[in-house]
Amino acid sequence: MDLLKDRITTDGIALGSDIVKVDSFLNHQIDVAFMELLGMEFGKRFAEERIDKILTVESSGIAVACMTAKYFNYSPIVFAKKTHPNTMTEEYYGAEVKSFTKNLVSMIIISKKYILPSERILIIDDFIAHGEAAAGMADLVQKAGAELVGVGAVIEKRFQGGGDRLRAKGHRVESLAIIESITDGRIVFQNS
Amino acid sequence: MDLLKDRITTDGIALGSDIVKVDSFLNHQIDVAFMELLGMEFGKRFAEERIDKILTVESSGIAVACMTAKYFNYSPIVFAKKTHPNTMTEEYYGAEVKSFTKNLVSMIIISKKYILPSERILIIDDFIAHGEAAAGMADLVQKAGAELVGVGAVIEKRFQGGGDRLRAKGHRVESLAIIESITDGRIVFQNS
Repeated sequence: MDLLKDRITTDGIALGSDIVKVDSFLNHQIDVAFMELLGMEFGKRFAEERIDKILTVESSGIAVACMTAKYFNYSPIVFAKKTHPNTMTEEYYGAEVKSFTKNLVSMIIISKKYILPSERILIIDDFIAHGEAAAGMADLVQKAGAELVGVGAVIEKRFQGGGDRLRAKGHRVESLAIIESITDGRIVFQNS
Repeated sequence: MDLLKDRITTDGIALGSDIVKVDSFLNHQIDVAFMELLGMEFGKRFAEERIDKILTVESSGIAVACMTAKYFNYSPIVFAKKTHPNTMTEEYYGAEVKSFTKNLVSMIIISKKYILPSERILIIDDFIAHGEAAAGMADLVQKAGAELVGVGAVIEKRFQGGGDRLRAKGHRVESLAIIESITDGRIVFQNS
């Protein structure tokens, strides 16, 4: 998606050789009109699919997931939680997610009420890096006995391998911008 | 907002005498079409104001904040973070937020780049209970030297006093549904 690559080039900041900072429009400050364009693009890419629910994880995936929902008949979105809220009194599914930057393993959880075995689920997130968050969400979908239609990521850092590991498992992964490398402070995109 | 009161009555669950669980449409599963109606209502209530930016806090305020932005010329939203991300290498403002349910004090932070002294800020959140999150966000706005236009909450639990404490400090607070009490498992709304 050229518009997104242009935005990353203009507003993104490369930190070292593996971090792309896009907090001016995606994951701290949010450009809502731009999120609508990203949602529309996910809508196009998965247009032929029946989607019953969109799954994301707090917090940075929520905005783009919301904007994607309208292209699937306003399917509900559910965001997996990183902590167990005191209001979650019912049973839940949990999945482990390893953080490479923080070097720790945490849990993401979702109430059993909000993924049903009959549902077709689209996962949406801001980034795929090592793919641990998406793999954790795929695990939640599988535990619920639901069907994973695919994974949509705004930005895939291909050099960290997460997207390709998900593809190797047979999942459809659609990334709106794919970064091949960060070389000498320059963000290099895959041509596609 | 009658539509919201009806939804809370139908889908909300009272837990004990002080918790209203609305995770079926607001803060775990999200009904995006309904969020658009809530955003439109905030747009009406603050229609005469110039809003430069909408401030919320992760995670449950993000969806409704996004839907509100379009009524203010797609003003950017910024969500305060509850943890310090490794990508936040610049200076930030921090404010303490006390959690009554967890009985601890935590910090919320925002990059100094994303609230400027010239800006008029609208705070949007899902709940005002004791008002600690909103007060923390108001503190961030003040530290930045920006102007706080008002606070919009989807649900105010008036019996916990946070909304009235903010009003007593001179802040405009607009809550789309105000709960007076939870009595014998029944959610009692203020008539307004």
